[in-house]
Amino acid sequence: MSDRLKALRAARPLVHCVANTVSSESCANLLLALGASPIMAQAPEEMAAVTAAAQATVLNAGTPDAVRWSACHTCLRAADHPVVLDPVGVGVSPWRAEKVRALLSLRHPDILRVNAGEAQTLLGMDSRSQGVDCPKGLPCDQATALAQRLARLRHCVVLLTGALDAVSDGQKTCCIAGGNPLMSRITGSGDMLSCLCGAFATVADAFTAAVTASAFWKLCAERAAATAPAPGRFRAALIDNVYILDDRELAAAMAGRGLLSFI
Amino acid sequence: MSDRLKALRAARPLVHCVANTVSSESCANLLLALGASPIMAQAPEEMAAVTAAAQATVLNAGTPDAVRWSACHTCLRAADHPVVLDPVGVGVSPWRAEKVRALLSLRHPDILRVNAGEAQTLLGMDSRSQGVDCPKGLPCDQATALAQRLARLRHCVVLLTGALDAVSDGQKTCCIAGGNPLMSRITGSGDMLSCLCGAFATVADAFTAAVTASAFWKLCAERAAATAPAPGRFRAALIDNVYILDDRELAAAMAGRGLLSFI
Amino acid sequence: MSDRLKALRAARPLVHCVANTVSSESCANLLLALGASPIMAQAPEEMAAVTAAAQATVLNAGTPDAVRWSACHTCLRAADHPVVLDPVGVGVSPWRAEKVRALLSLRHPDILRVNAGEAQTLLGMDSRSQGVDCPKGLPCDQATALAQRLARLRHCVVLLTGALDAVSDGQKTCCIAGGNPLMSRITGSGDMLSCLCGAFATVADAFTAAVTASAFWKLCAERAAATAPAPGRFRAALIDNVYILDDRELAAAMAGRGLLSFI
Repeated sequence: MSDRLKALRAARPLVHCVANTVSSESCANLLLALGASPIMAQAPEEMAAVTAAAQATVLNAGTPDAVRWSACHTCLRAADHPVVLDPVGVGVSPWRAEKVRALLSLRHPDILRVNAGEAQTLLGMDSRSQGVDCPKGLPCDQATALAQRLARLRHCVVLLTGALDAVSDGQKTCCIAGGNPLMSRITGSGDMLSCLCGAFATVADAFTAAVTASAFWKLCAERAAATAPAPGRFRAALIDNVYILDDRELAAAMAGRGLLSFI
Repeated sequence: MSDRLKALRAARPLVHCVANTVSSESCANLLLALGASPIMAQAPEEMAAVTAAAQATVLNAGTPDAVRWSACHTCLRAADHPVVLDPVGVGVSPWRAEKVRALLSLRHPDILRVNAGEAQTLLGMDSRSQGVDCPKGLPCDQATALAQRLARLRHCVVLLTGALDAVSDGQKTCCIAGGNPLMSRITGSGDMLSCLCGAFATVADAFTAAVTASAFWKLCAERAAATAPAPGRFRAALIDNVYILDDRELAAAMAGRGLLSFI
Repeated sequence: MSDRLKALRAARPLVHCVANTVSSESCANLLLALGASPIMAQAPEEMAAVTAAAQATVLNAGTPDAVRWSACHTCLRAADHPVVLDPVGVGVSPWRAEKVRALLSLRHPDILRVNAGEAQTLLGMDSRSQGVDCPKGLPCDQATALAQRLARLRHCVVLLTGALDAVSDGQKTCCIAGGNPLMSRITGSGDMLSCLCGAFATVADAFTAAVTASAFWKLCAERAAATAPAPGRFRAALIDNVYILDDRELAAAMAGRGLLSFI
């Protein structure tokens, strides 16, 4: 495995996030701690200019409104770099589902980051999730099957998150274990992971970026939980670990999870 | 007193917040730490669907705009579950006061969460508050009188917060002591309390929910201040205590404040 | 040096921030920790009323949209108190640059808070910054020359930030050393400094306010980094120090930087 964190920190890629209003500060802090440079613009009037300046784009469907959808459309059309789509709570309303489907029909994102409920909605299956959360995960075989099915439908890499994460590009699939249940007790943990995908996609192919982002995030969660057993302090410790971890520790964690053969 | 925290955590109610842009992340983190499931949607196009899926709605008038007022209207009409209204800074501008009054005339909320300045504005009295803060509280008799007067005018439970909190449904009234002055040195402490009211209102009547939320929040503040004497670390410790506290500790704190006979 | 922190805390000025959506919570928490009272309104319908009630206004161009520009216009016209303008990422798009220039032509702000890239854009020079960040600073002579040139062009005090800060009113100039590199690894550190400028400008002239805010912020960063060596915990420690520091410590830090003769 090459020194991806080192390469990312040296390149300091500009990652443009059409963020939701809830987690935008945490997403910006995550990217800065990682060593990337965030920009969270949203006005349709400047989407083309910002997209042209950025090295990756992360579109988030949480707290959507008409202007944000329009901004996302412009970004998708303009981007000639990796695009991550995070269809937060796509099953929450028919309006949101329709708007996300319109984005997906405009262009395949490079990485689609979903939880099980969102994947089920995008596949037209009955989803048992409520709201934007989907705390219970799936076993590895079901998670990889779901990720693969969605990857084939949408012609992109799917990162399906839960207690276990699964990544698929439609052919290759793998499961990523680890992490900590506190991740489901802070808001934006999925949104931040989507930003990690965008950042890693500037130094790796989409499949590798999704696997690396997932393993990195789970490692950060484990380290944070070791010193901060409740969600208030856990959030701060999580960002600390994003800043502190290096390629050696990441490679060891990925080797320990049997992921090195996939990337 | 029944095991309300346990019941709430088992039910994991979906609490919909039409939040302000300043405290939305903290409100989401509070609800997740508590064991509820937050959703912070705002687009009028999906308000009916989100409201139908939720078990409680919390409307916040901070950082208002035309779209948010419209979203609040739809929520108020659609909700068949507890609704909390937090008329943040209602006296800040005639426009905001008029919009809040329009909401109140549409439907009585179940709980109206105000500080003394906001209560005075809603009662047409001269308010001496400035901006959105009202750090100085009232003595118990004045606080309960003000809460009761507003409860009678608006036919709902009023939770009036300050150094002392007061709750009234127009008949019953009580005062809740405790807490910590650091609560007025972090933003969103009132907004988060309104979210607690919404969450507790899914497992108790409105009066009990308001009293319980107030006592729980004051207990969290006391515990947080014991380990974190300045506002930066206090915020994290506050959320930690929301996660950690259980019914036994909450019942003891309410008994110690003489509140068990009220609920 | 007079007891400015004490005066500020006694007056508890209402500081109105037309904030960006990313750092608005941190800006509010900063102002509360400092002892000021924040209000983060944004609706054009109430800008005149909020501006009339406030003692200082801080306009931030991050996450701009048509409504926010309109709100900024109303604030600039209505304010008869200190106004700080923070043209975040002015070079990010021609649209943003045009809108910032329109604000500047409406009225000279009292303090313009910029990084080197933003200063270069406003001076029509080629900027080498990317996005909204400009982590590399300039040496003292170049920073003061840039600040002075912009101050003369825009007839206001300029606070140019970087590893070294420079302040100029077009005549007087000074450099402020210190701080910590972690400041560039958290989002909103510049936005928060602009809020400090607004708060200090309620108890001092614009030049003194900018120098004091810069020195205060650098001192907070040094203190925070001494106990929190990574950005997650650093953010909390930073706010703790805003709350804890007093005039004696601030005066000592300014004396140690050779700043007392400037203010």
